[in-house]
Amino acid sequence: MRNGGGMDDFFEVKTVEQAWKALSSSWSPASPGVETLSLLDAVGRVLAEEVRAGEDVPPYARSTVDGYAVLARDTFGASEALPAMLRVAEEIPMGKISGRVLSPGEAARISTGGALPGGADACVMLEYVTLLEDGTLLVERPVAPGENVVERGEDISRGEQVLPAGRILGPYELGALAAVGETRVKVVKKPTVAVISSGDELVPAEATPAPGEIRDINSWSLAASVISALGTPVVLGIARDTCEDVRKLVADALETCDLVVISGGSSVGTRDVVLKVISDLGPPGVVVHGVAVKPGKPVILAVCKGKPVFGLPGHPVSCLVAFDLFVRPAIARTYEVALGLLPQRPGYGFVAAKLSRNVPSAAGREDHIRVRLREEEGVLWADPVLGKSGLISLMVKSDGEIVVPLEREGLRAGEEVPVRLTSSAFPLPP
Amino acid sequence: MRNGGGMDDFFEVKTVEQAWKALSSSWSPASPGVETLSLLDAVGRVLAEEVRAGEDVPPYARSTVDGYAVLARDTFGASEALPAMLRVAEEIPMGKISGRVLSPGEAARISTGGALPGGADACVMLEYVTLLEDGTLLVERPVAPGENVVERGEDISRGEQVLPAGRILGPYELGALAAVGETRVKVVKKPTVAVISSGDELVPAEATPAPGEIRDINSWSLAASVISALGTPVVLGIARDTCEDVRKLVADALETCDLVVISGGSSVGTRDVVLKVISDLGPPGVVVHGVAVKPGKPVILAVCKGKPVFGLPGHPVSCLVAFDLFVRPAIARTYEVALGLLPQRPGYGFVAAKLSRNVPSAAGREDHIRVRLREEEGVLWADPVLGKSGLISLMVKSDGEIVVPLEREGLRAGEEVPVRLTSSAFPLPP
Repeated sequence: MRNGGGMDDFFEVKTVEQAWKALSSSWSPASPGVETLSLLDAVGRVLAEEVRAGEDVPPYARSTVDGYAVLARDTFGASEALPAMLRVAEEIPMGKISGRVLSPGEAARISTGGALPGGADACVMLEYVTLLEDGTLLVERPVAPGENVVERGEDISRGEQVLPAGRILGPYELGALAAVGETRVKVVKKPTVAVISSGDELVPAEATPAPGEIRDINSWSLAASVISALGTPVVLGIARDTCEDVRKLVADALETCDLVVISGGSSVGTRDVVLKVISDLGPPGVVVHGVAVKPGKPVILAVCKGKPVFGLPGHPVSCLVAFDLFVRPAIARTYEVALGLLPQRPGYGFVAAKLSRNVPSAAGREDHIRVRLREEEGVLWADPVLGKSGLISLMVKSDGEIVVPLEREGLRAGEEVPVRLTSSAFPLPP
Repeated sequence: MRNGGGMDDFFEVKTVEQAWKALSSSWSPASPGVETLSLLDAVGRVLAEEVRAGEDVPPYARSTVDGYAVLARDTFGASEALPAMLRVAEEIPMGKISGRVLSPGEAARISTGGALPGGADACVMLEYVTLLEDGTLLVERPVAPGENVVERGEDISRGEQVLPAGRILGPYELGALAAVGETRVKVVKKPTVAVISSGDELVPAEATPAPGEIRDINSWSLAASVISALGTPVVLGIARDTCEDVRKLVADALETCDLVVISGGSSVGTRDVVLKVISDLGPPGVVVHGVAVKPGKPVILAVCKGKPVFGLPGHPVSCLVAFDLFVRPAIARTYEVALGLLPQRPGYGFVAAKLSRNVPSAAGREDHIRVRLREEEGVLWADPVLGKSGLISLMVKSDGEIVVPLEREGLRAGEEVPVRLTSSAFPLPP
């Protein structure tokens, strides 16, 4: 008859932190490698290398309004009472550049997004001009140089970092990659995680349990957890409570996968079998047996043939608590080896932050304003990122969005605002 | 020469709320339908119908400890000084049920997860017994009926709802489905969303722009946004600024997809083309043109051939703001038609909540405790969900987890605690 101790006696229960240190100091993960995907296939994946711009975005100065490209100095002092009088020299078609260079006193009809002709340095909105029948343009407001224009390279300049390695790819990131023509993306290969359940009482979830048997739950909750941790689950099935059966499945797993998770072994008998098999597969074999956490205490952490093996408790709740404590960070660690840094976690939902400066708005309009988050002495600050709405880099460089409601004329510095996280860049609060 | 007004004049700028009402009152979405998937393929998808248990989980009373199954009343009053003396009648093998019924005075050796034999109503832990050589078992502590036992159906009882329709499937949900043998899952088909970019200046992101041209950004940031909104993007490419070209692509899109998004048209010329095409494809055609939001004002909302058509601004930032305001809720609305309710949004990250009662713990151990969230008069309360760690239903019915740190002996009622959201059930704060 078995006794209550078994191989437990060789190990001391460790804290979560001690246990993680023991595992990570005896495990040097191999890099999972890199694969190249199309933009759509890369959504939700982790960028393997930083992307730098091979070109300026936009590649030429563009108008941000429908109106006329002008030489700003021709409009200085213009007013409704005393409009500047210019001659319309041409109309710039979309997608083309002008062969001409505007001379002083000339203007060119231009649409939003159109390329400024040579000589022009600003655009006047259609609303502030009157075109006379003889082709004379009356400009009723002055424009400053650069006004209503996105300069060449203003969004992203050639050589600039577009995205850092480790970015999880979402809408803004795809936009930025498309902007610089990077339509084949190098992402980190997902580490493969073998999932094994052990126990003589288990049958596959799709089978009908005989009396005394029960369906295998953990294979599926663990497989979905692996997916959520950006790994690829490989469900290997159920091992009987014999050294032979467990050894066969674990050996298979070590052959084909980057990490191995075996759940079950909540009974002393099964645990002893798993312990014995893992010990035999070392060195170093088992490095932790028992963690000071509830639920989840009977965790086994091991390294066999250079790969981590996790013996998780069989109880479904304990099993998932232990997964989150040890397997999730271990998967992140394989990314770290590929990247040289931890992948940035996606930001979801809302955080409360203090607005760092006044944001003016107009009543009767809902303003959506990009913000960057910054933590200072325990206070989370939202810095408004102001910029033209034509800039994709604005999205990539911000962490979230705040809204000035319809009925308000702005927000005050120091006000607490809900920030909708929209970027993958800012990690979630602890 | 074009003028600044065009078809704009027929429409008044609406607030976001008015615009959404105008769209939703003229659009009755068709249900996207249902498909049946395997458990792993269903991760991240939306459950189409509630799932009820066809059986009890567990299907028999199970021990939660390694020890002995007993009749609780045989142990009443037992102590170290005066142990109850029982006779070990058998050992229950895992995965089998006993043919015997325990008589008073008898005990059966049982492992964690083992099926209780008939007659037994509790289990004694191995730590509190001594087995003599003659097979006599000394029980040194009393157990109450039901102690160290999960009763038949205690986790999930036959006929009970396991998951409601609309649940987004993650680790806990997969575990619960496996527990009741539901390995083929009915999920809502993802609505298909056609993505079109328009503009004479645009070239595909993978092409090299000629002077005056620029790469198409919005197709890709929109496609990724569609994925994040649980739709399937169908990228149809770039339409030139002619009614013919726009009409052709939009007609294709209406033929094959559930929703249509066309970006661009930030210049008045393009906008007029898009407006004209969409108006011709009605009734009702265009229902909103212009929304009081910054950025994103020049939004067109339309319904053509019973499907919603979104004309989004061409500026990348405005385009994504408008997507989140109108297209994302429209995709959710197609799910609503399939489900009879909005899909539950997944809960990610952390929220702060007030603990509703004291949670005792032991120093030197990290306690992970499931909680349910409840909002009352603007205060978010975390109610600890106590239960055995063998119950998968505990995970499904809770919204998140709190941790009692190693060095603390518990948490006090009223304390503010960070709750890690783990379930898809609790919607994110506003």
